[in-house]
Amino acid sequence: MNFVEGMIIMDMMTARPYDVRLMIRQGQLKGQTSGMCKGYAQANLVTLPRNIAYDFLLFAQRNPRPCPLLEVSNTGDRFLHQIAEDCDIATDIPKYRIYEHGELKGEYENVAEFWRDDLVSFLIGCSFSFEGDLLEADVPVRQIEEGKNVPMYNTNIPCQSAGIFHGNMVVSMRPIPYELVPKAVLITGQMPKVHGAPVHIGSPEVIGIKDLSKPDYGELVTIKEGEVPVFWPCGVTPQNIIMSSKPDFVITHAPGHMLITDVKNINLKF
Amino acid sequence: MNFVEGMIIMDMMTARPYDVRLMIRQGQLKGQTSGMCKGYAQANLVTLPRNIAYDFLLFAQRNPRPCPLLEVSNTGDRFLHQIAEDCDIATDIPKYRIYEHGELKGEYENVAEFWRDDLVSFLIGCSFSFEGDLLEADVPVRQIEEGKNVPMYNTNIPCQSAGIFHGNMVVSMRPIPYELVPKAVLITGQMPKVHGAPVHIGSPEVIGIKDLSKPDYGELVTIKEGEVPVFWPCGVTPQNIIMSSKPDFVITHAPGHMLITDVKNINLKF
Repeated sequence: MNFVEGMIIMDMMTARPYDVRLMIRQGQLKGQTSGMCKGYAQANLVTLPRNIAYDFLLFAQRNPRPCPLLEVSNTGDRFLHQIAEDCDIATDIPKYRIYEHGELKGEYENVAEFWRDDLVSFLIGCSFSFEGDLLEADVPVRQIEEGKNVPMYNTNIPCQSAGIFHGNMVVSMRPIPYELVPKAVLITGQMPKVHGAPVHIGSPEVIGIKDLSKPDYGELVTIKEGEVPVFWPCGVTPQNIIMSSKPDFVITHAPGHMLITDVKNINLKF
Repeated sequence: MNFVEGMIIMDMMTARPYDVRLMIRQGQLKGQTSGMCKGYAQANLVTLPRNIAYDFLLFAQRNPRPCPLLEVSNTGDRFLHQIAEDCDIATDIPKYRIYEHGELKGEYENVAEFWRDDLVSFLIGCSFSFEGDLLEADVPVRQIEEGKNVPMYNTNIPCQSAGIFHGNMVVSMRPIPYELVPKAVLITGQMPKVHGAPVHIGSPEVIGIKDLSKPDYGELVTIKEGEVPVFWPCGVTPQNIIMSSKPDFVITHAPGHMLITDVKNINLKF
């Protein structure tokens, strides 16, 4: 990150979500959204055609830990009505990905030209929301300390299948000092709408992770003496499921480039 | 209730859910399920054709307070796979209702003969689950004390619409002594999968209830000196929405005749 980028992030930290979304819509902000609009929830995006939307909605209902839904759009509607006001889902995220038949077709700054009347958008909670509470309570969040993307791993934990969608859960890992593990469980357990409590504490091999030093997504972080790896259900799960299920056409956000919502993190507890 | 009925309920209180479901399937138990299988969750049923199932699933996603989903079946599948083992949804509830075009067609002891390959079943959480915790914590539950059905009211609180489904929330009312209201909020707030915290405390007219002495469903209960009416989102909401939206064909449970699941109430907190 250079100085100018650093200044932009500082400004954006205290900005209102609507103002930041407007800058993104107008192409003035194109980078990752981590750290922007402190206190407000950010969301993962999955947009797909109505003919497979029932299967995906059912998949999310059956797998609320990795796929907590914050809002589902009306069919064909580019605008959200619950978690963000005057929010155009085709332009208000800094970077999108389009997948065709499970393969990445490209990355785009907006997807207005690809929009179709049969598209349904799913906005999915993100663990950024509980990391604020962890830090506030003096529980370290290593990838933030080290300025990295959180390490994520494929597991052997099966999701409940729904129609064409099936596959295993992806988890994110944060190293937590042994004495703070209960506190980390209690804090994140209060926020089921953003993945909630961990799914596993301590032994990566039990959930099918062979080598902690090789994350499947994101970046490796330092695990210090006296710390235990703690694993949370991860919002990359739906993208992973979609890639393995190979539907014709899906739009997602690009990793780290999230939708900034008008919902305060604290309101995700209730 | 006569002596024999009383003995059956006593036995059923400590019975295993599977054994009770089997007796119901075999026609040996035909009455209400209130009080049976203490500690286990009971569920409301809505079964409707696949062509409107997306709208209903979306309605539930948008209105989790009145419509908390515990399980959604596979299309055409009479058996459940998550909240109950070896459970035939067409036979394991003591009494069903069938609605055609929003009107009650009849009540049936099983609906196997009406089953269709395009039906999807929605199992919805029930406030029976949190009443056990209220009683355990010495918060009175008046309709249980008085051996009545809980009083329920139509309100002016709009649900979020989804496709063909729209309408207002139905609430259940329990009179709570003023000093126990915070405790009642905290206890029920721990169980969002069975309606969670109250939606209103104190002034019925604020939520559009003109006369507390005339419940729209269920029975009137005594409100004593020093007690305040407390209102919770109610599982009758989906039935009410369905009646006003008038789909061709819907199966529900008959009021008070619920599905007894294998899920312990305590596990609905996590």
